[in-house]
Amino acid sequence: MDRVDIAIIGTGPAGISAAITSVIRNKKILLLGSADLSAKMRKAQEIRNYPGLPAVSGEALSAAMQEHLSSMGIEITEDKIISVYAMGSYFALQAASGIMYEASSVILAAGVTAAKPFPGEEELLGRGVSYCATCDAPLCRGKEVIVIGFSPDEEKEAAFLAETASAVTYIPMYRQEVQLPETIRVERARPAGIASDGQKRIVRTQEGTLTCDAVFVLRESVSAGTLVPGLETDGPHVKVDLQMRTNLPGCYACGDIAGKPYQYIKAAGQGNTAALSAVSDLDEKKDS
Amino acid sequence: MDRVDIAIIGTGPAGISAAITSVIRNKKILLLGSADLSAKMRKAQEIRNYPGLPAVSGEALSAAMQEHLSSMGIEITEDKIISVYAMGSYFALQAASGIMYEASSVILAAGVTAAKPFPGEEELLGRGVSYCATCDAPLCRGKEVIVIGFSPDEEKEAAFLAETASAVTYIPMYRQEVQLPETIRVERARPAGIASDGQKRIVRTQEGTLTCDAVFVLRESVSAGTLVPGLETDGPHVKVDLQMRTNLPGCYACGDIAGKPYQYIKAAGQGNTAALSAVSDLDEKKDS
Repeated sequence: MDRVDIAIIGTGPAGISAAITSVIRNKKILLLGSADLSAKMRKAQEIRNYPGLPAVSGEALSAAMQEHLSSMGIEITEDKIISVYAMGSYFALQAASGIMYEASSVILAAGVTAAKPFPGEEELLGRGVSYCATCDAPLCRGKEVIVIGFSPDEEKEAAFLAETASAVTYIPMYRQEVQLPETIRVERARPAGIASDGQKRIVRTQEGTLTCDAVFVLRESVSAGTLVPGLETDGPHVKVDLQMRTNLPGCYACGDIAGKPYQYIKAAGQGNTAALSAVSDLDEKKDS
Repeated sequence: MDRVDIAIIGTGPAGISAAITSVIRNKKILLLGSADLSAKMRKAQEIRNYPGLPAVSGEALSAAMQEHLSSMGIEITEDKIISVYAMGSYFALQAASGIMYEASSVILAAGVTAAKPFPGEEELLGRGVSYCATCDAPLCRGKEVIVIGFSPDEEKEAAFLAETASAVTYIPMYRQEVQLPETIRVERARPAGIASDGQKRIVRTQEGTLTCDAVFVLRESVSAGTLVPGLETDGPHVKVDLQMRTNLPGCYACGDIAGKPYQYIKAAGQGNTAALSAVSDLDEKKDS
């Protein structure tokens, strides 16, 4: 896959705005996220403060943005980015699909995750804790795994893991009924932390402890600090300046992930600024 | 006139966005500027990167924003603010109309002026140099004045001054034909600076020097630093943090005046943030 100029992670108003402005500035982009755009925006009953679209429903604003993208021929790549690595002159983006994308610069517009990592989770990441079933399934052959799924979407990841692992326990972090093959054990437990005991991994829950070889924590989005190693954060937010630059050259952030207020028009505005900073930095790099 | 919670100076996308969000948050506002909104936006042939409104003309975007304001019952007060004074617990806003408005907080959204002050202009402000014909006409009785006008709108100010002053010389800073009473002398000169010589003021031009008692410099908008004494600026821009706060408590800035990029969607986003910061600071003040 060719390296793009700008990879944009997230299809809320920040990511969409960044994509539109990047394309106007003739950059080759990769827009990664849900083709349904932001679920939060789509479900909003009425948005009263997006200037120019008075009292618009979230559904109508989403449709207008989708129309805007398609009128410019901008396509969404439906893939979830698990990790972004700064490689010096470019970024490598590890996706849940197993694909590794490459981009000269990256705009983070993935929103904020309300959920904090479990105690022990980040410490054990890559050592028996994984965010990506596709990537790490081959390592689970004949092993016992626990999958903590934050949305029904993750059930298919658990089913996929069951094709390789010797046993899969699925802990749903939502109330809806779970639809999984019978080979998968569903545990309605409330996880409180992940620990290590020799080769084994232990998921502590309020209902007791569960032991396994590997734990998959599958959230809708990964926390900013975990997503990009080396990125400076402030709580759940990425630290940015007024031009939406982060501490990593070539990496920008905008929208909810870049701080409060969590507002659609603020996100769209910051997406524009992030794109123009990326464009300007890319052009400068090319000239030098 | 009652003191408002938030005075918003400017009716471009930043000011409009700030007004809409402030009203949603139940604040009493004063929105000051042209009822025609931003001339720059209105004249834009096509705006391609305002997400949700693909390929919108400046005229259509302006109409949509006007419709948004009127749907919420937000009115524009057509008055030009000459000076903003931080009075401790509130701000006093001196208008070109002669009215002094009062507000608990101020959002600066007046755009940037390309024109730099003339050498000597800011030093002599209030000492023979004025930005406001209405305010200072009474001081010009029987005196000779020079008016430097940056748009045809200022001709009526010059005509008004001629009712009081003994002599008025008008220097148009634009090419259009000037339509003024015959008593006013029109001088097609290129001003280079303003100086003081005892009680007299001297306008140096590339064509020679002109002497008078008072000089009126009438621009479409006043530079940020001149508008609000004590405000920290960086060139033509007001220094702001990510929440659009300036160095003066209760004073916020957004849009072009707060820095580049000069983009409609960025301005609208920052207006929203400025309003929410103002609302939050006002509520905190009330609680304490």
